[in-house]
Amino acid sequence: MELNELKEIVYQENLKLVKNGLVILTWGNVSMADREKGVFVIKPSGVNYDKMKPSDMVVVSLKTGKKVGGKLNPSSDTPTHYELYKKFKKINGIVHTHSTFATAFAQAGKDIIPLGTTHADTFYQTIPCVKKLSKNEIEKDYEANTGKAIIKEFNKRHLDYMATPAAILQSHGPFAWGKDASSAVKNAITLEAAAKMAYLTIHLNPKVNPIDKYLSDKHYNRKHGKNAYYGQK
Amino acid sequence: MELNELKEIVYQENLKLVKNGLVILTWGNVSMADREKGVFVIKPSGVNYDKMKPSDMVVVSLKTGKKVGGKLNPSSDTPTHYELYKKFKKINGIVHTHSTFATAFAQAGKDIIPLGTTHADTFYQTIPCVKKLSKNEIEKDYEANTGKAIIKEFNKRHLDYMATPAAILQSHGPFAWGKDASSAVKNAITLEAAAKMAYLTIHLNPKVNPIDKYLSDKHYNRKHGKNAYYGQK
Amino acid sequence: MELNELKEIVYQENLKLVKNGLVILTWGNVSMADREKGVFVIKPSGVNYDKMKPSDMVVVSLKTGKKVGGKLNPSSDTPTHYELYKKFKKINGIVHTHSTFATAFAQAGKDIIPLGTTHADTFYQTIPCVKKLSKNEIEKDYEANTGKAIIKEFNKRHLDYMATPAAILQSHGPFAWGKDASSAVKNAITLEAAAKMAYLTIHLNPKVNPIDKYLSDKHYNRKHGKNAYYGQK
Amino acid sequence: MELNELKEIVYQENLKLVKNGLVILTWGNVSMADREKGVFVIKPSGVNYDKMKPSDMVVVSLKTGKKVGGKLNPSSDTPTHYELYKKFKKINGIVHTHSTFATAFAQAGKDIIPLGTTHADTFYQTIPCVKKLSKNEIEKDYEANTGKAIIKEFNKRHLDYMATPAAILQSHGPFAWGKDASSAVKNAITLEAAAKMAYLTIHLNPKVNPIDKYLSDKHYNRKHGKNAYYGQK
Repeated sequence: MELNELKEIVYQENLKLVKNGLVILTWGNVSMADREKGVFVIKPSGVNYDKMKPSDMVVVSLKTGKKVGGKLNPSSDTPTHYELYKKFKKINGIVHTHSTFATAFAQAGKDIIPLGTTHADTFYQTIPCVKKLSKNEIEKDYEANTGKAIIKEFNKRHLDYMATPAAILQSHGPFAWGKDASSAVKNAITLEAAAKMAYLTIHLNPKVNPIDKYLSDKHYNRKHGKNAYYGQK
Repeated sequence: MELNELKEIVYQENLKLVKNGLVILTWGNVSMADREKGVFVIKPSGVNYDKMKPSDMVVVSLKTGKKVGGKLNPSSDTPTHYELYKKFKKINGIVHTHSTFATAFAQAGKDIIPLGTTHADTFYQTIPCVKKLSKNEIEKDYEANTGKAIIKEFNKRHLDYMATPAAILQSHGPFAWGKDASSAVKNAITLEAAAKMAYLTIHLNPKVNPIDKYLSDKHYNRKHGKNAYYGQK
Repeated sequence: MELNELKEIVYQENLKLVKNGLVILTWGNVSMADREKGVFVIKPSGVNYDKMKPSDMVVVSLKTGKKVGGKLNPSSDTPTHYELYKKFKKINGIVHTHSTFATAFAQAGKDIIPLGTTHADTFYQTIPCVKKLSKNEIEKDYEANTGKAIIKEFNKRHLDYMATPAAILQSHGPFAWGKDASSAVKNAITLEAAAKMAYLTIHLNPKVNPIDKYLSDKHYNRKHGKNAYYGQK
Repeated sequence: MELNELKEIVYQENLKLVKNGLVILTWGNVSMADREKGVFVIKPSGVNYDKMKPSDMVVVSLKTGKKVGGKLNPSSDTPTHYELYKKFKKINGIVHTHSTFATAFAQAGKDIIPLGTTHADTFYQTIPCVKKLSKNEIEKDYEANTGKAIIKEFNKRHLDYMATPAAILQSHGPFAWGKDASSAVKNAITLEAAAKMAYLTIHLNPKVNPIDKYLSDKHYNRKHGKNAYYGQK
């Protein structure tokens, strides 16, 4: 893929965050990696969505995490994206937002457990709330440590990052990812919808249990399993 | 009715789900049956609403439940539609969504009881929450069993499926239906509005009772009874 | 005012209900009276807002409550409007909606008490929840009895219908009114906003008290009192 | 800056309140000061946003608080703006709205504590709820006393008005400010978003604590501190 094409995609996927109500002002960012070229392209920091152009997208090395193209500063969350791309080798798209309900769960310090098939279709199991960073982790290399904390949490819980392509960071907000930027954005949209439904469900039935394992197996597999029959070939 | 006309209607009614905020991404589907032709037309599976064309709609036999026209795969929920058309003989339109508040009630495993005339005008009595399927029912013929479970619940509770044209499926979400696709979509829109109002009402008054039977009789009958006086002749 | 002009106004004000999110499908209606001509003009029953034309508006006698002009059936709520115009002599506009939060208070059977200046600016004091009608009142002349119940409640509580231009009907929803259709629609919009704020406030502080009388006096009077200084002369 | 340019900015920023869903009907107002010229420009009182023109903006003296230019009456909240400009010397933009969630906290009489980085990025610490005014303060010079009460609260709590550029007034609603009108509007938008997230967070975890001081330090400083690295130079 040409770099310009990648910039155009990243630009368009960033705009989708606004159109889908996940982002206001300059909050949020999308990146997409080209593993062959050894780079990822990310939104510039603090630029208004309505003034942003595809050529404003910033190119960052997948090897060093440093800017290698573009005039503007990359998103301040770039080191988080970099850490995730380094360890989650199958992902090529990452999204960060402060979407309302996902952020509320993050602020409350609570996992988003699977309460229905809307959740299971995309996230299979519980979306983990990554516990807050220490004073040291925040004061030095905060954004890189944010990425490392997500990876550590997935390892500790033995989660498959492709089956559960999102995490929420306590006191902060959600990250979602996928095989490309478009998948990552879809997962961020679904995360917010699932979080809103979970909020409402818990308030209708505070003792509700996670859905049965065989139901989440069924829904996840009909979409993503070997014999998937959702969608077109 | 010409098949092309039916496809156009089903296409338009599917788009209405998006316009009315009941559906995001590729979630949700509408079908409409032509009993004389012995077919129903349904949305293809997993196709983006903004790329979908009327000619993408899929034709399914009302006799066998198998695809008999169209290039794409039909919605993965097609067997649910098929079961409902088989047993609910008076309906010719079916809608499935994951609309937020109706899905929250489904996830909470709670019926939506009639708390006001907004509900009674369209659904008359309680909208049943169909209890979750067994492991076997999920693992084999899941979508057909979903339809069968709805029918069983209506039989068990002695409900009139034309007076109460919707159900919610525990851990999943809502189905609504009607005399045609347009009615079914109206019922799906009303279901979501009634569910949201019910959510808010319960949180203002946890001990609220269902409305009086004579009030739901009045409202249902002024719209749908023999001497109905709502609307135009 | 020419009758055609009145129809145009009523038509436009009905559309405002949709634009402001108070009404979906065919729910809701606006009327406006011309006391000199002895008529009021009201939305036809059950007609889609996007197909409705100004000439579809229906003319009703203020003397008899019967249709005196227009081809279509008037709103099924016409007798409620009629009763209100008969007794609330200073009003010339009435709105009925099923707006979400106002309806939730109605369904919960709870008054909307003044919790802030947003409420006080327009409604001064508590917006009453009119208790539900009896079986007899519902089965015969339901819509006329709805109007009578509002009037009775205002008399019983010694409320000034111009200072508190709205009521909610238990198990049903809100009515709002004003010196003309435009005022009535503004009041219906404010009612929904005040109801939403009240819902949220009660859930943040279940023991919250109504605002101080002198604050509601101040806000109401700076907008509507003798020495009002809000707005332009 | 030319006065006409200032009027155009104030006009545009007022419209942004509507576009961002903070304001309905004629509620809310934005002003911007030109310290050199010794004036501030503010929205006229009670004028519809869709009929308002840049030339309708009203010019007020920073010395006397009296109107010195424009045909219409200035916002009834002008004396509040005047008091804030007099004491908060570094601000040149002020916004007042009745945005839903911020107003709900105001009506509940509760501070908005920092529960996540969305809040900390812009407001650093707790957004204070200014306790209600006395009968005397309301009956005489109400709007000026509103401004004085905000200033007194900031002094009493030793708050930095540039680090925490907003307050909510009990029983009323929010004020936000900034270095210019655009900043003030951004802060008003962020305030509403932070208030909504706080509402949801508290309902997911009633015992939630404010975020750690070092996390709010980090987020506030990466955006506003000496070594800020958010955004472009």
